[in-house]
Amino acid sequence: MKIITVSREFGSGGREIGKRLADELGFSYYDKEIVAEIAKRHSLDENYVSVALDRSVTQSYPLHFGRTFSYSGGISNTSVQLFAEQTKIIKEFAEAGDCVIVGRAADVILSEYDPFNLFVYASMESKVKRCLERAEEGESLSERDAAKKIKRIDSERKKIHGMISDTPWGDRRGYHLCVNTTGLEIKEIVPGVLQYVNAWFASRK
Amino acid sequence: MKIITVSREFGSGGREIGKRLADELGFSYYDKEIVAEIAKRHSLDENYVSVALDRSVTQSYPLHFGRTFSYSGGISNTSVQLFAEQTKIIKEFAEAGDCVIVGRAADVILSEYDPFNLFVYASMESKVKRCLERAEEGESLSERDAAKKIKRIDSERKKIHGMISDTPWGDRRGYHLCVNTTGLEIKEIVPGVLQYVNAWFASRK
Repeated sequence: MKIITVSREFGSGGREIGKRLADELGFSYYDKEIVAEIAKRHSLDENYVSVALDRSVTQSYPLHFGRTFSYSGGISNTSVQLFAEQTKIIKEFAEAGDCVIVGRAADVILSEYDPFNLFVYASMESKVKRCLERAEEGESLSERDAAKKIKRIDSERKKIHGMISDTPWGDRRGYHLCVNTTGLEIKEIVPGVLQYVNAWFASRK
Repeated sequence: MKIITVSREFGSGGREIGKRLADELGFSYYDKEIVAEIAKRHSLDENYVSVALDRSVTQSYPLHFGRTFSYSGGISNTSVQLFAEQTKIIKEFAEAGDCVIVGRAADVILSEYDPFNLFVYASMESKVKRCLERAEEGESLSERDAAKKIKRIDSERKKIHGMISDTPWGDRRGYHLCVNTTGLEIKEIVPGVLQYVNAWFASRK
């Protein structure tokens, strides 16, 4: 089983790298599919699940921690339970076959599966530029807003990761390859990453 | 001008990656050549230069700092002056043409030349194994000794780097690519790194 996890700074192009790797390798690709699956199984709104997972886990964790583990069953829609559900689904996806999973602390959650862990990052200037380029129509985002959004989202990612791992988010030691996309076209660098990943899997056989 | 700098944890195989990249690309390769050149120009023993640069700079820096800058000329063999000389020689090498430079904080020293900065690392277990495999004949090194040596050397590298850069040694943000060689054969992963580096240079034109 070959699993690639992609952790990335917001706006670094990590999702595009993950998608292109999956396409090239013929692997399944999971990103928003994870949230969609949780929402589907529990008849919840995707947005609700997404926000609860992305933002509320770190805030609600200390409050819910004790309560959750004293519950004896049944799903209540707390962030912690959503997080547990997410863990379960990520493992199900991983066991279904070769795949690329973007975000969701899959590098930590799937460590027992010996995944290839990729980290993608870039300079703030480069991330702001990418954010503004891909802003949805009608969305007016200033450079300052974009920088604030990037910092906020990455800070949440860091916190969530820190809850379940001793190696800090973005610390090279937690990854097999760290790629700086500053000033680069994603499609230009994917072939090198792909060759590296293939060599890594081959050497692990 | 294409310049690749290789920074690496001791025992991670970074030097081998650098050498192979230089061979593949037909670039000049500088590693011990830098110390040899300083020694030659100033009629010093290579070992003396090497030890002074590797170990003494951080220890002697605070002591020599004031003195050095109040000197009005002439080379005295202090570590700081050797470091300055090293900086000069690294820039001369860089200006002589496409090259790979291993270690010596060349990533920082050559920042104005827009080099590709590679960082190579590995787990402690993997580095100890590599150290023991390449130990010179007659050198008896225990696993514990090797681990201590690795920690000592990397700690010196970190200190020297910290003296001349705000970005900590080994922090992803200071590099364009960070490669974890744990459990890998260097020669297997070089083609992927090479392709990545070529794409990087092409996109920077």
